[in-house]
Formats: sequence, structure tokens, C-alpha cells
Amino acid sequence: MASFDCITFLTDYGLEDGFVAACHGVAARIAPGTGLIDITHLVPPGDVRRGAAVLAQTIPYLPPGVHVAVVDPGVGTARRGIAVAAGDSVLVGPDNGLLSWAVAALGGATAACQLTNGELWLHPVSPTFHGRDIFTPVAAHLASGGDLASVGTPIDLADLVTLPAPTSRVHDGEAEGEVMSVDRFGNVQLSIAASDADRLGLGFGSPVVVRCGRRQLTVPYLETFAAVAPGEIVAFTDSAGLISLAVNGGDAAEQLGLPPGAHVRLSAAMPA
Amino acid sequence: MASFDCITFLTDYGLEDGFVAACHGVAARIAPGTGLIDITHLVPPGDVRRGAAVLAQTIPYLPPGVHVAVVDPGVGTARRGIAVAAGDSVLVGPDNGLLSWAVAALGGATAACQLTNGELWLHPVSPTFHGRDIFTPVAAHLASGGDLASVGTPIDLADLVTLPAPTSRVHDGEAEGEVMSVDRFGNVQLSIAASDADRLGLGFGSPVVVRCGRRQLTVPYLETFAAVAPGEIVAFTDSAGLISLAVNGGDAAEQLGLPPGAHVRLSAAMPA
Amino acid sequence: MASFDCITFLTDYGLEDGFVAACHGVAARIAPGTGLIDITHLVPPGDVRRGAAVLAQTIPYLPPGVHVAVVDPGVGTARRGIAVAAGDSVLVGPDNGLLSWAVAALGGATAACQLTNGELWLHPVSPTFHGRDIFTPVAAHLASGGDLASVGTPIDLADLVTLPAPTSRVHDGEAEGEVMSVDRFGNVQLSIAASDADRLGLGFGSPVVVRCGRRQLTVPYLETFAAVAPGEIVAFTDSAGLISLAVNGGDAAEQLGLPPGAHVRLSAAMPA
Repeated sequence: MASFDCITFLTDYGLEDGFVAACHGVAARIAPGTGLIDITHLVPPGDVRRGAAVLAQTIPYLPPGVHVAVVDPGVGTARRGIAVAAGDSVLVGPDNGLLSWAVAALGGATAACQLTNGELWLHPVSPTFHGRDIFTPVAAHLASGGDLASVGTPIDLADLVTLPAPTSRVHDGEAEGEVMSVDRFGNVQLSIAASDADRLGLGFGSPVVVRCGRRQLTVPYLETFAAVAPGEIVAFTDSAGLISLAVNGGDAAEQLGLPPGAHVRLSAAMPA
Repeated sequence: MASFDCITFLTDYGLEDGFVAACHGVAARIAPGTGLIDITHLVPPGDVRRGAAVLAQTIPYLPPGVHVAVVDPGVGTARRGIAVAAGDSVLVGPDNGLLSWAVAALGGATAACQLTNGELWLHPVSPTFHGRDIFTPVAAHLASGGDLASVGTPIDLADLVTLPAPTSRVHDGEAEGEVMSVDRFGNVQLSIAASDADRLGLGFGSPVVVRCGRRQLTVPYLETFAAVAPGEIVAFTDSAGLISLAVNGGDAAEQLGLPPGAHVRLSAAMPA
Repeated sequence: MASFDCITFLTDYGLEDGFVAACHGVAARIAPGTGLIDITHLVPPGDVRRGAAVLAQTIPYLPPGVHVAVVDPGVGTARRGIAVAAGDSVLVGPDNGLLSWAVAALGGATAACQLTNGELWLHPVSPTFHGRDIFTPVAAHLASGGDLASVGTPIDLADLVTLPAPTSRVHDGEAEGEVMSVDRFGNVQLSIAASDADRLGLGFGSPVVVRCGRRQLTVPYLETFAAVAPGEIVAFTDSAGLISLAVNGGDAAEQLGLPPGAHVRLSAAMPA
């Protein structure tokens, strides 16, 4: 296996402690000179779905590399550690579904191993910090040219844990989805692809009916949030290709009361 | 044009999402091995003046490089994308004034282009994420040795959007300014240069009269906040050469009720 | 003295401003190509003990390098700036005890100098930003191969300021400690080493009596927080080798009302 120029990290470790730096340090000791890119360390603690979504939406823009992801509420229990080859990259982390959407975004797994080769780990292994003692040293070993097979025993790809896909369906002229994430700007990303909008007959400039719970509102579907006046609500296709709701200069999630996981339906407004 | 060893980033993207990492990844793919320095990604959403101030105060300490700044509430609208040569560096971002104070800090623009060469961009270009799809790939192209002229059509330097300078004047023995920023320590940075203090007859050790609204207080003007007892208020020259108000061990912005933009006047206290 | 591949930073500067980037920029100008690792910049403002603890717990995992730490409420006053050789590394910062626990973690100081060689500094030196103007340029000079003796006058190692160790003693079958830190997950780290647990007859699977103030509770001592049901309290050995209290999937610090500095006693539960 070729070596990699880049190791990336996504965790829920936060930035107040030295946890991220310990991982960076371990990587730098084993694979000096390898580039390190932090995806984010502010995944809400234990929120595997949120971590999976950020990883899957970011990984197409990262260089081929070894991508370490750790949102791992089951650390130290029976859940496996894995390394999964997909596209030109390898992903390393717990086998709890965290990696699964990113693996799919890279075209699917081509090989996978359970991390069983303890010779690559830092000892003593902390039962609560596999990021530092197992995942990062294994990733640095792979980045330095180590073969996937050297990290442990092969796994049947069908046995990898995958997260259920978010709700996303089109029926009766309506697209149904859920709130995937709320970004720093309060923009509400839905699990409804722009291609589904096409199937509903929605195009830029169309009014779209948004239903959440018993509420209903009609907003324009436009290319960007900045196309409406400040304070107005707009639907647009976001940078991940998903339909999102925004308030220009405001916080749509707060204004619409739409937290992650909330169900939303979209349809084309009937001509008046 | 020579290549650059360094690309820097300043945005309002926050750290919770993968937006910053997507830009880092795009830069690493186009210009592998180039150093990446994050200035900050916590500019308050859409706060162009705050972004401009942080960029201008930090850029003198950065290596010559390509400096990408994106605080861009008008993304996807008619505002232009630009690359501006100044000093030994090039700045890339929206033409909304964000870059203007930093360009001035580097001695003024020597050349500028509108980003019109779509061959350098990532396609499809997201209308809401020009940082990833336009500004970063253009910056990486420049860092790799691309010529400024290759990014688009030349712009008359007089046409670049500049932010109005913050209030800062001396009249009738009084310096008038506004709160430029409040840092993590609650220190209140004023748009009043230490050189203006000199003109008012203020020197270290002098008492200074601070007027904000109808309030007035007299505090010592000293070299550092640590020169007063804990809990006491002090005026000092901060690390950007501006007069700031601090409470030693406390939060001056909170205690004095001085948010960014608040007007403040300073004068030498009359001898008793 | 050999050069170093790595400069690390720990400060209380926060991430909203350009302070950290100014230090990175200064390092990159003086020692281009040297790796930069951020430990954390979110030490609570002025909290020297917290900074010292994070530095000491992280440094064993960092590459040999120059470690700059700045939590410096006395900046600009008589406190000295120092560079201390310990293990394969050099630590640079204020002589206020911040470095002392990390120096001990590396096996103790082997040499130290007061930073008196102003030729290495950035001028004019800001009285409130020695991180940018003194500590980082000195660190970059050392990383580039500068000799420790070149940064200033030697100091008697016995004169270095050391922080008092946190409370940690075993008497009458009880271990007494204090809360060292609360991490992002709300886990409460105590200044009681796992080795002290052994002396008390505690082993994994034992119930442990936790006393704080007049409250008392009995919890299991297990290998990891994930070994108890969600919502339950557990004692475990954390990744720094210290006994910590956690609520699986919850926030132990909040639930138990245990902030940093609170006193806690542990003992083996009597057999029923």
C-alpha cells in the first residue's frame, strides 16, 4: 500500500483539553512530516449521526489520506475498532456506524480489517482513549506506508455497522426529510437532495411549501440566502447538494424551531 | 510571480462544521505541502468590520503568503470576488471591504484582479460556499506560483470597496474613538492610537479621563493591565498599538458596559 | 543544541482573535517548515493551574520539541520569562509555575535560562503580548538550532517557580484529592492516582465510597464509563492515570456539583 501525505481527524473531544493535541503528537512521532487536517472536534458528545454527516459531507474535498474519526460512546466495550479502505483513502475508527456514510460517499468499502494487531498500539492502552492509543497510531502506521492487512484481521464488508440513512422520500408530490444539521449561521440542512426538488417540479424562483408538524409556510426556492431581503426566509441548495432553509442575516433554526432530527415536508406551491 | 509557502484563512465559518476543513482539503489537494495558518474562524457571522480588524491587526505578523478571508453575507450575489496584491502578499476574498484595512496595513494595493477565470474554480460552484469553490482554489493556484493576472480581469485600484475607517479624531484636547473589539479577556480595544495619547499629553503614569455616554471615570494610563491591583480599571497600549481599557483579572467590557461600536472619549485629567 | 521539528503552543488566548495566528506567523517567519501543534488555547483566562495540568498530561505524547506555554496574568511585571530544558524538549514561558508540572512529567529540569537576550525578540515588545514578541521568537530560535545558553542568563534550577502539587494523600484507608479538571464530557478528574486506588484495596469491580463535603455515595470502580448503564455514575482510571468520576452519557460534574478544586475522598466500601 502506498503511503499518504495526510491524516485527518474528526472527534467529539472538544478544544478545551489536550486530547486532540495528544493525537496530533502521537501522529507526528510515528509519521513525522505528514500533514494533519482537523475536520472538527466539536461534534456534540456521543452524537454519532452528526459526526457521520459532517465526515461524509467533508471527505470529498479532502486529499487522499487516512481519516481518523472518533465519536465513540462505547469506547472500551465490545464494539470493534476498524480500518476501512474506500476510494483512495482509508478510514479508521470505531465500528459503530460513524464511518459508514463517508465510506458510501467515497463509493463504498473495498476492504476492511478489525484492529487486532496490538503491536501497533500505544501501551498501556487507556480503556477510555482509544483515539490516542489505538486509532491514531494505527492511522500513522498506515500513513507511513503500512499495509491495511497489517493492522488486524480482515472483516466481511457486509458485517460493518452502518447507520440507518436519514428519512428521505418522495411520495404524493411531497418530499419528506429530516433536519440533518444546523450550522453556525442557523441554516437548517434537510435530508432532501436538490435532485428530489427537481422531481417535485421545484426550480429556482418557484415558491415551495414547507410543512413541519402542524405548521405550514410558503417560501421562495432560490440560489442563495442572500437573494432575499434581510430577515426573510428562503429555501436554497446548500454546499452539500441538500435543500436548506435560511433566514438572510438571521437564524432559521431558532426562528422556525427546527432542531436536528425534526421532520419536514416540501412540495411545490399550487399556482394561485 | 513567485510561489508562497503559506496560505492563511480568516472566516466566520465557525468550528462545529466541516467548512474550514473542506477549504484546507481543497488547498492541500491543489498546493500540497504549503503551510496553512488559521487566523480565526470565529468572526461573528457576517460581521465584516470585525473580520477586517482582526485581519489587519494580525497580518503584519504573518509570513508573506496568500491570505484568504471570507466574511461574506452577500455570497452568491453581484459582489465581486477579488485578489489583491499588497506588500509581499496577495489577499483573496469578497470585494466587500473585508480586505481593505489589511491591504492598508501592508502599505496599500499594488494590483488587483476580479476573480473571473472559472477554470481555476471547483465545479459545480456552490452559490453559498465560494470559500471552498472559488477563493481557496484561486489562493492555492497563486501559492503554487500562478500569476495574479491569471485569476481574472484587472481592476482599477480606486474601484476596490473600502470600509469606512472607525471613528478616530482628536479635538479640543480630547480623543474620540469607538470600541474596535472586545477580546477573550474582556479587554476593550479603542480606535485611538497610542500616538494620539501622546498628542493629548498622556504618558504612562498619567491619569486619563474616560467618557462614554454620560458616564465619566478617571483611570491610570499604564504600560500593562497587571500594573494595577486585581479588580482595578486601567488604560494601556495594547499589542496592536491601540489604547485599551482593562480590569486586571476581570472583564472590562462587561463591567463598563462597552460593546463593539460604543463611542468613547479620552482626555488628560486636569491637575488637582 | 540540536534543532527541533516541532513547536507546540498552550495559551489562554482563546480562538476569537488573531493572537494565536500572530504567534504561528512569527514562528513560521523565523523557523519556516517547523511543525506547529496547538495543545489548547482555551485555558480559562489566567488559570495557571489548569494550564499546568493540561500541559503536563499532554506533553508525554508530543514529539520532542519546543513547547511554548503562556497563561500569564503577570505579563509585563517583574515575573521572569524562562526557557527550561527537560527530557528531549525545551519549555518556554513565564516563570509563574505554569511549566513546572510538565517539567516534572519530563523527568525534571536539566538546565534553565532567563530570557534576557533581547536580540531574539520582536521589537517594539508589547508589554501585554510576550507570547508574540518574546516567547514565540525565542522558541523559534531554539527550534532552528539555537543553543539554550543563547537565550539569556542561566538560572539556578532551585529558583524556578513551582506550583504546589494538588492535594493527594492516603491516610486511614482513605485517598483524599481534589478535582483537577472537568473535561468536555463532564468527566471529573481527581488528583488521585490509580496506584493509590491499589493501596486502598480498590480493584476493578469493587464498589468505592465517594465523599465530597457532607455527601457520600457508593459507585462501582470499573475500567470505563461505558461499562455502566446510561445515566449511572462510575469511577474509572482515566487516560492520564488518574481516578475520574463519570456519568455514562451524562455530565458528572454537573450532576455531582463538583467544580475544579473541590475536595473529594475515596475509600473501599465495607463488605456488607
